[in-house]
Amino acid sequence: MPDHVEPPHATAAAAETVKEHSAPQDLVFHAGWFCPFVQRAWIALEEKGVPYQYNEVNPYKKEPHFLKVNPKGLVPALEHHGKALYESLVLLEYLEDAYPSAPALRPREAHEAGIVRLALQHISNVVVPTFYRYVQAQEPEKQAEGKQAFVKALQDTYEQWFVKGDAQWARGDDFGWVEAALVPWVARFPLLEKHRAFNIDGVGPEFKAWAQRALDRPSVKATTSEATAYEQIYRRYFEDTAESEVAKATRKGEWLK
Amino acid sequence: MPDHVEPPHATAAAAETVKEHSAPQDLVFHAGWFCPFVQRAWIALEEKGVPYQYNEVNPYKKEPHFLKVNPKGLVPALEHHGKALYESLVLLEYLEDAYPSAPALRPREAHEAGIVRLALQHISNVVVPTFYRYVQAQEPEKQAEGKQAFVKALQDTYEQWFVKGDAQWARGDDFGWVEAALVPWVARFPLLEKHRAFNIDGVGPEFKAWAQRALDRPSVKATTSEATAYEQIYRRYFEDTAESEVAKATRKGEWLK
Repeated sequence: MPDHVEPPHATAAAAETVKEHSAPQDLVFHAGWFCPFVQRAWIALEEKGVPYQYNEVNPYKKEPHFLKVNPKGLVPALEHHGKALYESLVLLEYLEDAYPSAPALRPREAHEAGIVRLALQHISNVVVPTFYRYVQAQEPEKQAEGKQAFVKALQDTYEQWFVKGDAQWARGDDFGWVEAALVPWVARFPLLEKHRAFNIDGVGPEFKAWAQRALDRPSVKATTSEATAYEQIYRRYFEDTAESEVAKATRKGEWLK
Repeated sequence: MPDHVEPPHATAAAAETVKEHSAPQDLVFHAGWFCPFVQRAWIALEEKGVPYQYNEVNPYKKEPHFLKVNPKGLVPALEHHGKALYESLVLLEYLEDAYPSAPALRPREAHEAGIVRLALQHISNVVVPTFYRYVQAQEPEKQAEGKQAFVKALQDTYEQWFVKGDAQWARGDDFGWVEAALVPWVARFPLLEKHRAFNIDGVGPEFKAWAQRALDRPSVKATTSEATAYEQIYRRYFEDTAESEVAKATRKGEWLK
């Protein structure tokens, strides 16, 4: 297990964002610049425009204070007025509850909020595990199966959970939770293209257009590092030697299918 | 695969509740009387006191209308003014959002709501899978392991997520989501006692006292059938021949640990 990550901090626009959020605040965001689960909450913080302090957690050398914030030792975690929370989807709910007057990412209408929560379950329980199985597949036939399953998971997401038509975003005119929850993996597609011959065209033109709009969104750009930086981290995933909880669960086949 | 469940409907106090909720309403609760995931939402409906129509879904003979409500074919599902939702935890959120003036099961304070959502993740991702692994274990040593893991999962739930002290309920003075999400499995402990020599004393006296209070709660009594009725359904789980999605996932070792 390496005792550092290389580079040890965000690059490109994300590095600027980290710098802008270095001053102490009541809200501390314990993060890892390269982690897509972190980026979910990070996008939400940027969209809501609330003051926060970014704290980079070294995943290989966790400070005792951080282990008090999250005994599981996982980012993302929030500390707000000294009270801690973690798990990316729990943090998305929290930011809506704690900042009701900031721009909303959660739909205000009850049924639509329910639909979006179902979409997030699909993304977390189907799309995300399928991504890691694809990335960590080593044999050519496993990689081919992985690609097929991942493309299908994205197509199903579009078919089942996007409103379609002229809508800019997954659920209509407002950038929201479906974007925050899914786009972090879209931002890592360049790695799939390089290492696994992935091509977003295979998912469909509407999904591709949505993905491009999302990647151009200021909150997404502001939380995304260069592909070459991610490359340093994800090389271990593509070689299936990564030691994160997600990588180990994927290797053991423990994701709930 | 059998084409019926025996008995085909709730018994005891739950049968009365079904009868009281047989008239058409704007809110239709598609349910299975024996399913603990159903009971989560059913307890919430009873606690909130909102009008609803109970509809028993035969899990082995699903009507086309029900498959439109939930394409996955799983209960619980809600139809409200013709709009559908499903997944027990999504339904718990929905009932809070849709009936803000009914008694609340979700904490109104943002951080406390986040803590309870983390507790619900622990219950759903650790306690519930551990229950089914214990129930479906066949060899004596696997059953012993299963008991140990299940007792530990309950003890961890108490240690990490209960406020303790003089509190009546998991999070303080108010019966809430932790009860709704966990008690349905507690209501099935008599089956564990009979088939797996489970004894709640092994979990601890505070947990036992909480469990007894919860089982005496009117909303829990009103949604619980006789142990002999559950017995007919769960026999297949104890023999590891059940064909529900949960049973199959458990058999294949697919729960995320």
